[in-house]
Amino acid sequence: MTGAAPFASRSGIADMEETAVFAPKFDADGLIPAIAADAASGQVLMFAWMDAQALAATLSTGMAHFYSRSRATLWRKGETSGQVLKVARVLTDCDQDVILIEVVAQGLGAACHTGRRSCFYREVTGQGGQMRLNPTGEAPLFDPGQVHGKPGGGHRA
Amino acid sequence: MTGAAPFASRSGIADMEETAVFAPKFDADGLIPAIAADAASGQVLMFAWMDAQALAATLSTGMAHFYSRSRATLWRKGETSGQVLKVARVLTDCDQDVILIEVVAQGLGAACHTGRRSCFYREVTGQGGQMRLNPTGEAPLFDPGQVHGKPGGGHRA
Repeated sequence: MTGAAPFASRSGIADMEETAVFAPKFDADGLIPAIAADAASGQVLMFAWMDAQALAATLSTGMAHFYSRSRATLWRKGETSGQVLKVARVLTDCDQDVILIEVVAQGLGAACHTGRRSCFYREVTGQGGQMRLNPTGEAPLFDPGQVHGKPGGGHRA
Repeated sequence: MTGAAPFASRSGIADMEETAVFAPKFDADGLIPAIAADAASGQVLMFAWMDAQALAATLSTGMAHFYSRSRATLWRKGETSGQVLKVARVLTDCDQDVILIEVVAQGLGAACHTGRRSCFYREVTGQGGQMRLNPTGEAPLFDPGQVHGKPGGGHRA
């Protein structure tokens, strides 16, 4: 990243849980889990990873940025699809090793690269034995083949 | 784990996104990220990890189980605090490498080991420079010192 990070180093902070110091913990790969939830409904839309650069870019621009592990690069959510996530609020958890962003989905409101509002469009169902996946009924809001070139082509997490 | 897993192996499944086969992807450490959200309000309550055993236990018992990385053991959520998470629905995401459980919090309804409803009780605020954490106003529902012996003593993620 260029410039100073807008957050602190974790060294020397005794109480991560009650402090006002923002000292996010990145894992051995330099990444922190990030959950995006709809600011109005609370619905969980997607899960991805941020590195320090993506977190700093999210905070400075107010638009969700992630780190694409599959492409090993900064990923401005919606840069191909137009399905940008505008950030209403950024939160962290008790030990500051997870980020939660509350967002307002722009464009057609499809956070998932399959064209659906949420990536969590299938429920695990069944009793014992092999469980199955059942659609929750969320229909695609766009045709991923049109937007990303091919099915799955837009997947970056 | 003892017995057959209630989910499939990922090998040979061409289309992870539209299949009805539940073939969750565990990472190199055998873990999958798991988000717990309130079944009624949608509020994200906590984030932790599941191994195959924790996922199978969650599915078979209807109570949230995680893998405690700090204790390297199966963790039945609420086993010490009584703050059990009853599972209403289990979902997975497009590429089946994240689990979302929609839960009804039992006991006092405090999913966080600090005694709060949610682990996400601080907002990242500020403009440029060093960002700070601001309480969202969620008050502890129990005294963690009483329940876990010492502050932070109940943290297992």
